[in-house]
Amino acid sequence: MQPNKQEIINYLKDFASSERYNRIQDIVRKRTRHITIVVENLFQSHNISAILRTAECLGIQDVHIIENNFEYTINKQVSLGAQKWLSVYHYNHLTNNTVSCLQTIKEKGYKIIATLPQENNYSLEDVPLDAKTAFLFGTELNGLSPEAINMADSFIKIPMYGFTESYNVSVSVALTMMNVNERLRKSSFDWALSTEEIMDLELDWLKKSIKDAERILKRFFNR
Amino acid sequence: MQPNKQEIINYLKDFASSERYNRIQDIVRKRTRHITIVVENLFQSHNISAILRTAECLGIQDVHIIENNFEYTINKQVSLGAQKWLSVYHYNHLTNNTVSCLQTIKEKGYKIIATLPQENNYSLEDVPLDAKTAFLFGTELNGLSPEAINMADSFIKIPMYGFTESYNVSVSVALTMMNVNERLRKSSFDWALSTEEIMDLELDWLKKSIKDAERILKRFFNR
Repeated sequence: MQPNKQEIINYLKDFASSERYNRIQDIVRKRTRHITIVVENLFQSHNISAILRTAECLGIQDVHIIENNFEYTINKQVSLGAQKWLSVYHYNHLTNNTVSCLQTIKEKGYKIIATLPQENNYSLEDVPLDAKTAFLFGTELNGLSPEAINMADSFIKIPMYGFTESYNVSVSVALTMMNVNERLRKSSFDWALSTEEIMDLELDWLKKSIKDAERILKRFFNR
Repeated sequence: MQPNKQEIINYLKDFASSERYNRIQDIVRKRTRHITIVVENLFQSHNISAILRTAECLGIQDVHIIENNFEYTINKQVSLGAQKWLSVYHYNHLTNNTVSCLQTIKEKGYKIIATLPQENNYSLEDVPLDAKTAFLFGTELNGLSPEAINMADSFIKIPMYGFTESYNVSVSVALTMMNVNERLRKSSFDWALSTEEIMDLELDWLKKSIKDAERILKRFFNR
């Protein structure tokens, strides 16, 4: 009989320090997919790297990256390896990947809220969090594409008081996600991962935390 | 008799569009010096540029830059010219400029709150805003210097839920300042600029908005 996931985790965890496994167990229980981040056509690698780092710090597991025009690179000095602990989805096979990305996310039950300086249905503080929600952020220069704006369910604007008409995109992501993340964690909504998702991540993170994890697992399966 | 500031403003404003002058009058009344930003030894130009942009967006007039080891440069693609509308103070003449900067700020009546991942007296949401307060942020790699930590009145920590142990510094600044800025503007504290400060900024911003402002002013004084 094939061992189940929990048995694999139990075997593997003895190869990690107990401190490490405790940390994994603690952090995975703070992970959420109830809110997610979608970025479209970012081209400055320090921005995408800072966004991944922010997502990891906030415990937001999924980041969706639409790459229509720009090749995706990570600046490791900025990301500090945050991407290792995240589920990062890339959309770059089609000429226009925005529609396919947002369609995929909608089919998973997410509402899409876009950040726009001009238009807004909600202020940041009033965004409802009862449904799973994806927050959509556009490119540094031109903002969101018409396709993205067209597919959004609603819009928010981050408060501004000066001459400058927009925040840096990695700042926009941080301000938006910190706000909704804090409210979500204080709410009674079911924001945590399922037992199955928790086991999947524990296994993945254990593998990444243990030297020679693949060899160890092979030995386990060959017993 | 020398014309007073208001007379100079009244003369100069006719050389700007009324839309522009209205915008200046609107924005200057949203400016605050009740809270201020101090950064120590940042070396990535996109970070300092993003911080200036955030300060301008938030209506925070003063930014203090301690440069002990690194030359200060602005990435204009990131700052979008925000520094033009801010009062940016540089501390770079001594071997260690941290003490002189913080001493200067304390003498102006500011409490100093440092962001540290390890230690905190307040959670971000609970920072009291009754006194003028300077928020102090350290370098990307090593955090704040011992001198800076030693001179801080108290410490805050931004909420974190993942493996990554810190936010990008420009993200830390944005998260901290957005929180205290929103609370300050909803409070009854006297956060706005004085009439004198408002006139000084109106004059400065008008000069920066009008082509040939210096020549126009010279003609005015020579009448």
